[in-house]
Amino acid sequence: MRNCLENVRKMAPLVHNITNYVTVNDVANVILAAGASPIMADDEDEVEEITALCNALNINIGTLNKRTVCSMIKAGNKAVSLGNPVLFDPVGAGASRLRTQTALKLIHEISFSAIRGNISEIKTIAAGTGSTKGVDADIADVVTEKNLSEAVSFIKDVAKKQNAIIVATGAIDLVSDSNQCYVIRNGEALMSSITGTGCQLSGMMAAYLAANKDNMLKAAATAVCAMGLAGEIAKKHLKEYEGNATYRNRIIDSICHMDGDALEEGAQYEIR
Amino acid sequence: MRNCLENVRKMAPLVHNITNYVTVNDVANVILAAGASPIMADDEDEVEEITALCNALNINIGTLNKRTVCSMIKAGNKAVSLGNPVLFDPVGAGASRLRTQTALKLIHEISFSAIRGNISEIKTIAAGTGSTKGVDADIADVVTEKNLSEAVSFIKDVAKKQNAIIVATGAIDLVSDSNQCYVIRNGEALMSSITGTGCQLSGMMAAYLAANKDNMLKAAATAVCAMGLAGEIAKKHLKEYEGNATYRNRIIDSICHMDGDALEEGAQYEIR
Amino acid sequence: MRNCLENVRKMAPLVHNITNYVTVNDVANVILAAGASPIMADDEDEVEEITALCNALNINIGTLNKRTVCSMIKAGNKAVSLGNPVLFDPVGAGASRLRTQTALKLIHEISFSAIRGNISEIKTIAAGTGSTKGVDADIADVVTEKNLSEAVSFIKDVAKKQNAIIVATGAIDLVSDSNQCYVIRNGEALMSSITGTGCQLSGMMAAYLAANKDNMLKAAATAVCAMGLAGEIAKKHLKEYEGNATYRNRIIDSICHMDGDALEEGAQYEIR
Repeated sequence: MRNCLENVRKMAPLVHNITNYVTVNDVANVILAAGASPIMADDEDEVEEITALCNALNINIGTLNKRTVCSMIKAGNKAVSLGNPVLFDPVGAGASRLRTQTALKLIHEISFSAIRGNISEIKTIAAGTGSTKGVDADIADVVTEKNLSEAVSFIKDVAKKQNAIIVATGAIDLVSDSNQCYVIRNGEALMSSITGTGCQLSGMMAAYLAANKDNMLKAAATAVCAMGLAGEIAKKHLKEYEGNATYRNRIIDSICHMDGDALEEGAQYEIR
Repeated sequence: MRNCLENVRKMAPLVHNITNYVTVNDVANVILAAGASPIMADDEDEVEEITALCNALNINIGTLNKRTVCSMIKAGNKAVSLGNPVLFDPVGAGASRLRTQTALKLIHEISFSAIRGNISEIKTIAAGTGSTKGVDADIADVVTEKNLSEAVSFIKDVAKKQNAIIVATGAIDLVSDSNQCYVIRNGEALMSSITGTGCQLSGMMAAYLAANKDNMLKAAATAVCAMGLAGEIAKKHLKEYEGNATYRNRIIDSICHMDGDALEEGAQYEIR
Repeated sequence: MRNCLENVRKMAPLVHNITNYVTVNDVANVILAAGASPIMADDEDEVEEITALCNALNINIGTLNKRTVCSMIKAGNKAVSLGNPVLFDPVGAGASRLRTQTALKLIHEISFSAIRGNISEIKTIAAGTGSTKGVDADIADVVTEKNLSEAVSFIKDVAKKQNAIIVATGAIDLVSDSNQCYVIRNGEALMSSITGTGCQLSGMMAAYLAANKDNMLKAAATAVCAMGLAGEIAKKHLKEYEGNATYRNRIIDSICHMDGDALEEGAQYEIR
């Protein structure tokens, strides 16, 4: 995983983000922390030009509005035509018909390199319908040690069907390209008390894919380990009176300081 | 007030926010800090479904644009029909005709459970016209110990006329349901050096209303005390070289750590 | 420069911002840190009224969308008609035709008091076309000690042609009104690892212009020195495990604490 991380810092890929207005600032800062550069642009009249300047595209429907769906499709197809990785974060797919249908439409129109969501969002995409508790995973869907084999098979199947790397994050994270599945146990429960760690991971993962196009599965898994490990390191630096807001900053700080040694030592994964 | 706070942590209500893009990230994080969950969604085609998943709705016109007014009305009426509390934060009412008229329109169309603003915004709503210095209260309107009795009567009258809990925040905060008025003296002057403490309070208050539907007046007052007390606690943890940006984080951190004991001990209020 | 800083704290100007959704929260907080007040409003139907309440206007095209271009022109012309300073931050001009053409259109329609960008954005405006690496300056354009004389002449020429104060920020910052050019060497390389220090500077500079209308060149240069110096001070307070996210907060904190003495002592500039 060391190489994947170091390649991001060497290449400093430019990542085009069409994303939500809730977590956008954190997404920009975590991309910078990882050694890449962000640009946000969502107007239909410029997205193709912007994406053509970039090395990767990150599409996120966290505050979906109909104005930008067309921008997402135009940018997505342009990035694909240039051979750039395109990542999709289907935030809240399953929570409303608009989100579910838009997610399915985007998947139909764009050949995504990777799709990252919580397990409920991934299930929604696989089934074409679904239920999510707002932007959090439905408790009935959660991946545990008990249902892990089944979950791994499921994610491999979705990856095969979608012809994309599928990343389902939660207490246990799964990353698969249909042949292999990384099972990752980094991370901290406290990360769910901050808005946007998922969005941040998606933005950073797009940079990892761009800098490691010859092994995008490993790149995606590395980004997941790095984010989870950052959550662990950040927790250690948290003073007793510090809470979720400071923790948010310390996670990005930890990405900023992370090097290959720390990542190799801290990454907790197996391949199934 | 202990119960009100603990009920939020027990119920973990989901709060739908249609809010501005300036302070939205802080609103999400303070809702999480309080033990609830936020979701932001403003497209006309999904707001009713989203709000139906949620336990409360928070409407804020801080960066009002005409596209979302219809979404606000749809979501508001849906939430009311489900018996969910709906809070309105009329940011900048009085600063432009668009804001004043939109605020009045929303109040006409939606049966709000609570309306929270600075005293100038509340006066604008009561009078149908008004003057605010941008998003801050007009100095002529400020509630002081001197004009307090008059202000309490005024807020009670507005609460009666609007058939809603009225919350006017400032150096002295007033929270009334027309019969009673909480007069609250928590808070720190430094809080006005941060953008969005009002928006944060509104988001958190929506969670408090949802978790305490049998006593929404007390719930609203508790949220005001908690926010003010968080400002006081955060100030104590501020190092000499730390300023408003760190203070912003420390306030949310203090909400994150606040328990019933701390709140009972720190809350400064009387009921008139 | 002491006077310029102190005038902002005395006058507490209200700054109307039509800006991007990536860095807007930081822009609001840095304006507050400097002793001024922000308001964000971008709907065509209210921008003229909002700007009429304010002392300065800050226009930023960081997440340009066609909906707000008309708002920018209306607000800009209103502010000019009231004698209020209007600052333009042409984020990403040169990165897409939409941004370049919109930037040129805004410059054609509005008599800006000041234009602040990186050197590539300023070159784009001067030439009518250009290339920027997303939102960062093209390496070929960077101002160095070696090409400094040439760069100073260029900025003076642009200032003359545009009849505005031109501010090109980077490792060396240039601020000119065509007659004089401040060459400023404050700042820290680490500042480029945060999103939005440029946007923050623009927002704060609008406040400085408003509070120092009799010497706007000096006011603009003072804002540049203050921001760079804040970056230097913030760096000193950074603990070894703290990274770009905490640094972001510490910069705003340093603006919050900066006084005339610190600024006079720390400002590094010459006038050419």
